[in-house]
Amino acid sequence: MKLDLKGLLIVISGPSGVGKGTVRSALFNMSGHDLVYSISMTTRKPREGEVNGREYYFVSKEEFQKYIQEDKMLEYAEFVNNYYGTPRDKVMELLEQGKEVVLEIEVQGAEIVREKMPEAIFIFIAPPSMQDLYKRLLSRGTEPQEVIAERVQKAQREIKLAYLYDYIVVNDTVENAADKIMAIIRAEHAKVERTIHQYKEMLEVK
Amino acid sequence: MKLDLKGLLIVISGPSGVGKGTVRSALFNMSGHDLVYSISMTTRKPREGEVNGREYYFVSKEEFQKYIQEDKMLEYAEFVNNYYGTPRDKVMELLEQGKEVVLEIEVQGAEIVREKMPEAIFIFIAPPSMQDLYKRLLSRGTEPQEVIAERVQKAQREIKLAYLYDYIVVNDTVENAADKIMAIIRAEHAKVERTIHQYKEMLEVK
Repeated sequence: MKLDLKGLLIVISGPSGVGKGTVRSALFNMSGHDLVYSISMTTRKPREGEVNGREYYFVSKEEFQKYIQEDKMLEYAEFVNNYYGTPRDKVMELLEQGKEVVLEIEVQGAEIVREKMPEAIFIFIAPPSMQDLYKRLLSRGTEPQEVIAERVQKAQREIKLAYLYDYIVVNDTVENAADKIMAIIRAEHAKVERTIHQYKEMLEVK
Repeated sequence: MKLDLKGLLIVISGPSGVGKGTVRSALFNMSGHDLVYSISMTTRKPREGEVNGREYYFVSKEEFQKYIQEDKMLEYAEFVNNYYGTPRDKVMELLEQGKEVVLEIEVQGAEIVREKMPEAIFIFIAPPSMQDLYKRLLSRGTEPQEVIAERVQKAQREIKLAYLYDYIVVNDTVENAADKIMAIIRAEHAKVERTIHQYKEMLEVK
């Protein structure tokens, strides 16, 4: 992605259990923004209350693999025998239209997006402490013991990758975290390399 | 300034007449911030309503030149036979204490700060249009004609230097501009190079 691509791609990621989804929801519930959420695709089963096409596109493993084979995924990650990923076309279309597109994805997927689109904005959601993260991982009662164990190990690997990101936002409270992300997006818009073209046009009007 | 210096130096500048002072006031009137304003020193006469030690430290030309000779100015600029500048000691002391120090200075002075402290955050306040800027410059009725003419020429030079800054904030409304600056400051705090040390300390707590 070049800076003169009209849209802005915002990648929200962070370790398993940190509360990425909740922060992203809070962000979208804020008023006065113009963000578009890119819904991920997954092969995992919907959790209670999750709706197809809202939280995720829920597809079969075969469908997902077809997307991969046809190079239709911007990024994807495999975890506990399930795939999670972002279909590419929709994201590119939104960016062409000048939208602010938010991806909320796994750390592994964020690595791929960084390679393909280094100009995106990478935000790492961090827990206020490791204890806090462990507590969250262990209290999520929806999964069997071995899934939780794998999730803990995954989080321990992921937590070390924060240095690769542009910003670290601590999820101390969901509101604080969402608020900070909004500030980051506003600030990114004011960055000189994003505004200088528009600014020069303004200068022509003498 | 190194990034591990505790404080954050925020330089607000922009062309003559753009309304830097008004934006800065609005910024400081916002709630919930922790900013400290570094009061500039000037040899110009106070305008109506201006108080020594609030808008500026008003000093004589001799006093100002003594500061320059003793290398006690972080930056200074000369304009229409008057000096404007920032005494260095106070700023450094505040930064050592970890404060967020705001300078609102002339473009010429900002150049000097950029050389001495490249790690500072440079924000350029831009007018919504050149017409708008001319209007503001001409309507300021407090100065004689030749001062206004010099101010217009100065603004025309200064407006071209926006590309040297980190951020461009358009002063469409004072509230918008102040709000954007606050977002920039919050975002800068979340930048990975500023948070990674603290983050690593957090990781030690296992």
